[in-house]
Amino acid sequence: MIIVLKPGCSEEQISHILAKIEEFGLRHEVSRGVKRTLIGVIGEEDLVRNAPLKAIPGVEEVMTVLKPFKLASREFQEEDSAFDVGCGVTVGGGSLGMIAGPCAIEGEDVLLEIARSVKAAGANILRGGAFKPRTSPYSYQGLGEEGLKILRRVGDELQMPVVTEVMDPRQVELIDKYTDIFQIGARNMQNFNLLTEVGHTNRPVLLKRGMSATVQDLLMSAEYILANGNKRVILCERGIKSFDSSTRNLLDLAMVPNVKGLSHLPVIVDPSHATGRPELIPPMSLAAIAAGADGVHIEVHCRPEEAMSDGQQALLPNQYADVMQGMMQVAQMFKRTIPKPSKN
Amino acid sequence: MIIVLKPGCSEEQISHILAKIEEFGLRHEVSRGVKRTLIGVIGEEDLVRNAPLKAIPGVEEVMTVLKPFKLASREFQEEDSAFDVGCGVTVGGGSLGMIAGPCAIEGEDVLLEIARSVKAAGANILRGGAFKPRTSPYSYQGLGEEGLKILRRVGDELQMPVVTEVMDPRQVELIDKYTDIFQIGARNMQNFNLLTEVGHTNRPVLLKRGMSATVQDLLMSAEYILANGNKRVILCERGIKSFDSSTRNLLDLAMVPNVKGLSHLPVIVDPSHATGRPELIPPMSLAAIAAGADGVHIEVHCRPEEAMSDGQQALLPNQYADVMQGMMQVAQMFKRTIPKPSKN
Amino acid sequence: MIIVLKPGCSEEQISHILAKIEEFGLRHEVSRGVKRTLIGVIGEEDLVRNAPLKAIPGVEEVMTVLKPFKLASREFQEEDSAFDVGCGVTVGGGSLGMIAGPCAIEGEDVLLEIARSVKAAGANILRGGAFKPRTSPYSYQGLGEEGLKILRRVGDELQMPVVTEVMDPRQVELIDKYTDIFQIGARNMQNFNLLTEVGHTNRPVLLKRGMSATVQDLLMSAEYILANGNKRVILCERGIKSFDSSTRNLLDLAMVPNVKGLSHLPVIVDPSHATGRPELIPPMSLAAIAAGADGVHIEVHCRPEEAMSDGQQALLPNQYADVMQGMMQVAQMFKRTIPKPSKN
Amino acid sequence: MIIVLKPGCSEEQISHILAKIEEFGLRHEVSRGVKRTLIGVIGEEDLVRNAPLKAIPGVEEVMTVLKPFKLASREFQEEDSAFDVGCGVTVGGGSLGMIAGPCAIEGEDVLLEIARSVKAAGANILRGGAFKPRTSPYSYQGLGEEGLKILRRVGDELQMPVVTEVMDPRQVELIDKYTDIFQIGARNMQNFNLLTEVGHTNRPVLLKRGMSATVQDLLMSAEYILANGNKRVILCERGIKSFDSSTRNLLDLAMVPNVKGLSHLPVIVDPSHATGRPELIPPMSLAAIAAGADGVHIEVHCRPEEAMSDGQQALLPNQYADVMQGMMQVAQMFKRTIPKPSKN
Repeated sequence: MIIVLKPGCSEEQISHILAKIEEFGLRHEVSRGVKRTLIGVIGEEDLVRNAPLKAIPGVEEVMTVLKPFKLASREFQEEDSAFDVGCGVTVGGGSLGMIAGPCAIEGEDVLLEIARSVKAAGANILRGGAFKPRTSPYSYQGLGEEGLKILRRVGDELQMPVVTEVMDPRQVELIDKYTDIFQIGARNMQNFNLLTEVGHTNRPVLLKRGMSATVQDLLMSAEYILANGNKRVILCERGIKSFDSSTRNLLDLAMVPNVKGLSHLPVIVDPSHATGRPELIPPMSLAAIAAGADGVHIEVHCRPEEAMSDGQQALLPNQYADVMQGMMQVAQMFKRTIPKPSKN
Repeated sequence: MIIVLKPGCSEEQISHILAKIEEFGLRHEVSRGVKRTLIGVIGEEDLVRNAPLKAIPGVEEVMTVLKPFKLASREFQEEDSAFDVGCGVTVGGGSLGMIAGPCAIEGEDVLLEIARSVKAAGANILRGGAFKPRTSPYSYQGLGEEGLKILRRVGDELQMPVVTEVMDPRQVELIDKYTDIFQIGARNMQNFNLLTEVGHTNRPVLLKRGMSATVQDLLMSAEYILANGNKRVILCERGIKSFDSSTRNLLDLAMVPNVKGLSHLPVIVDPSHATGRPELIPPMSLAAIAAGADGVHIEVHCRPEEAMSDGQQALLPNQYADVMQGMMQVAQMFKRTIPKPSKN
Repeated sequence: MIIVLKPGCSEEQISHILAKIEEFGLRHEVSRGVKRTLIGVIGEEDLVRNAPLKAIPGVEEVMTVLKPFKLASREFQEEDSAFDVGCGVTVGGGSLGMIAGPCAIEGEDVLLEIARSVKAAGANILRGGAFKPRTSPYSYQGLGEEGLKILRRVGDELQMPVVTEVMDPRQVELIDKYTDIFQIGARNMQNFNLLTEVGHTNRPVLLKRGMSATVQDLLMSAEYILANGNKRVILCERGIKSFDSSTRNLLDLAMVPNVKGLSHLPVIVDPSHATGRPELIPPMSLAAIAAGADGVHIEVHCRPEEAMSDGQQALLPNQYADVMQGMMQVAQMFKRTIPKPSKN
Repeated sequence: MIIVLKPGCSEEQISHILAKIEEFGLRHEVSRGVKRTLIGVIGEEDLVRNAPLKAIPGVEEVMTVLKPFKLASREFQEEDSAFDVGCGVTVGGGSLGMIAGPCAIEGEDVLLEIARSVKAAGANILRGGAFKPRTSPYSYQGLGEEGLKILRRVGDELQMPVVTEVMDPRQVELIDKYTDIFQIGARNMQNFNLLTEVGHTNRPVLLKRGMSATVQDLLMSAEYILANGNKRVILCERGIKSFDSSTRNLLDLAMVPNVKGLSHLPVIVDPSHATGRPELIPPMSLAAIAAGADGVHIEVHCRPEEAMSDGQQALLPNQYADVMQGMMQVAQMFKRTIPKPSKN
């Protein structure tokens, strides 16, 4: 950590700052430059990371050197994380998680029809929402536990691991009975109590990036889950806010190699929520694989115009099959594999 | 609602769309322009607001005419909402809520010292965090229930209504025992289960705008609370994300008159979190009152360099007293009053 | 165009609006809904696009139906634009323009060394800046005409078409003597006089997207060039502003298929300026080709630590050769070709 | 400047970096911390500011300590800049420049009518566009020199200094004949050749902030003008890009005290372009004065629905008179004056 002092900082103020640093059990080095005096703080930066040093008179700026996340970092673990999420499907380390399914679970027949089609096309994880975070209190809120039961039955019948969203710490225990993977949605990325709660479970977590979260914010949220004991976190890019409303959100695809430089965790891409436009999903899915993503998450529905939620951005089963063909080819070129799910 | 059709849309597709509209019990008017055919949907727009009409073949775009919020809207209630938040302090309708206090409750002596100073300066609501949403799992997380007890005792002693943050639906019952006003933080603005839970209580809610929330998103979150029966919502602007990191967030002050045109709810401004820089808080506080805000929220600490949280952005008590003097003058010029709290 | 009226709009106001529409030689259709009255304007929308209809009393909102660009649109020209940019190199329609070279032209030897290496790797267009738009008046501003001469000589020697930036309408005539392609930089995307000036020339224009330009803004700037008679415009995505400073800008790769749906113009991607980080350039280059881009623009330097400008984001020649290998493979998979430049 | 080294940086690499620093004539201090080695660079930071040190192997990050602008900085000049812009109207140092007038000059009668009304209300600078930067090549582009003549005649008749936009370095000489103040529009804030050109003139420059410009970017553009010899620069906030389209742009009012901390230059606020909505202009004008702005820029038109440009955001003369009344009161409270223009 480096403390930049204001031009007129007095010797008394400097002494006060140095004493403060020593209180934290750290060493310091004063460097008097032409225009500014700097104080280098030597020792475990975390000890002072959250101390309000900038509030001390005479301090102009405080610059940190190290990243605030630890367990999520590449420095903590050099090799890629890779783990089984159910039915023998490994995500990470060159093995791709291909998640597909409807936005909301609407009934067993519909889900089964969609699930069969996406599995046939090559998807290896089935998604479906039972509890839906809707911006309007008047919108469809999901089937709740009934939806979870349907999802579990369909997952079992087709031998696919399933993922569903958890919105509330009080739902964790219930959802844990039915799902293979917890999804934390973008709007809950900084719901720290929810992160802590899924951190206490034994299931993989698909953590979606918040719409105004930096890459560092996302890794700090992953750190919450890791620090509570759950090592199986999959990060997911699903678009961030921007000034151009021609797409629903702005897909930050460079986030994939950016995160991979900083962290060992797998990263998948969700072009459905990122673009909100079916015709943009195929090219961005191919681009995601080419950029090094550990999987792609796509919403699929057999009759989008009747979907209870987000139908306007769903792909049809045959559109999904086409884009999976392309993704398989790109994956093969980059020597990555798409595992087939099998009996648990 | 207006449905814009694609250039080559067939008559069969148009018939299908019209039939769909009729299914919803609505009427339609087809208007064939030079380059595009439009379908006007007549009737209760809410019936089709969330229907995935854009997923129907032949549809290019769907344009809505009405806002999706109702109870929060000016059309629903023309006059400004104004209500007592405790100790006779009214917020709204020309009466200003001046919230001040430390970021986190750290102990009874410190809180009492800060509270005395801000009350003497003219603040009429005391703030303090007991449960802190921290981006790092390794940061100070607050005193919990012990903090709530301290806050209540200090509020009672000084006869000031108190506000504290609730982060988790499971905390609502506990916090309800101690606080006068619930605060929903920016990161939880779209924690819909939490909004629903405070919507079931009988206490005013200070709802902070999320960092990537549009004005409409904020009003939709208020709608969740209102629709669950709680009519006392105070909106709070605390800065949104932008590309310029020279301030912590970007204070959107035009949001104040913008919201007031759309909604009857009171709006206060938090320049502490919005700017993150003590020297910018006084001018933006004065500007907030001049822009028509129903109050200002400022973090104050007697010894910022020892604060457990956000010390670098706290004002000192004498700095707070100075800015309150200025705010009182501006308020007086605009014929607004700052009520003094009194025995409940 | 649809005009939404305010709830209490009087019949007199409506008559005034209808008369206004007739003045423009257009027809109207009034549709009285449950909560709002709408007026559909029928006829050539462009006649009223810029009329301040929203300033008329009683008007709540004006919604346009058609895009404001014409010559740049897919409706104007259905098939992809593709054209020779020099030395037989076609850009567009499945033929990729691979632009490479240093940020600034620093001398003939250096440029020749870099140009030889990128040509050997497969690049087919050489870039180099002679006039540099620098944010600081104290930074290196480029070699000017001397740089242009060097660029021309090296381009001729290696039989590569060359591209260089024009910053000022007064430079157009001079640069026209030396370059094959004009580059308009991001900061000049809405320098309308400059757009008009290159629109009068007979050379292809590489038009970079401004850092806060929407896709529609970019197409409107292309329209300026097209409307002045120059049909050879290549659009270039180079990153937009965002709140995450971990990359220099935010690469909006979904812009590629987004633009291709709206326009017939070729689109290339510049991951060098978009990310500003050498290690992110290769994955984003591969992703760009997979997303359907008509080319990739990469800065290359033999000794980045001695570069006069932007050295920190340049690839080394061998790094460029590696990423070109990957791009060739992806291009081949998608049946796109990278033409080799030949004697003019 | 501080250079942060990568964890595994070799001694050889460190020596190479130190030699590099010495080449620039600077001293260095190596500080070996627990997790990272840092190199402090001592001496004139500007000598290495633009050197691509990050491109040197072993370097993880380069952190600068000083701001890159000099002549624009408070360190260069402690007291506020204040200067006469014509007709005895001083802007800066407690004296407010109140700019008003139509977006475009449409004719002498209209301009005279508007100018009379705004002068009577208290405006002291008249604005009007003769060359208009329009996003569409098909929009009204202004009256050109004829407009300049009208503006000059009206300014002379009413004894008001006038301001008009210059878009092109080739227009500087012509416009210099007619105007008192040059305006550089937001889209040209980084048109460095234009900045240089007005830097060579002897007239005040109203420099508008670009829509994606940070405060530092704006000050660097001011530096271009100052470094070319013209000391009279007035900065202008007119809104930046954001994700919320409910206002035209996002007014960053905190920019006023933020800039005033960094620079001695006067700063005015343009709520017309920032919000694009007439009903938001009065509250934001009052807020601007309360925040410490050195003036307010407002578009006024007698018949907005007939305006050739931006009519939908113009105030009527009586609305302008009302908001001026309020601004005068706020200005008086803060002991600032609005000078009346007089015979030159």
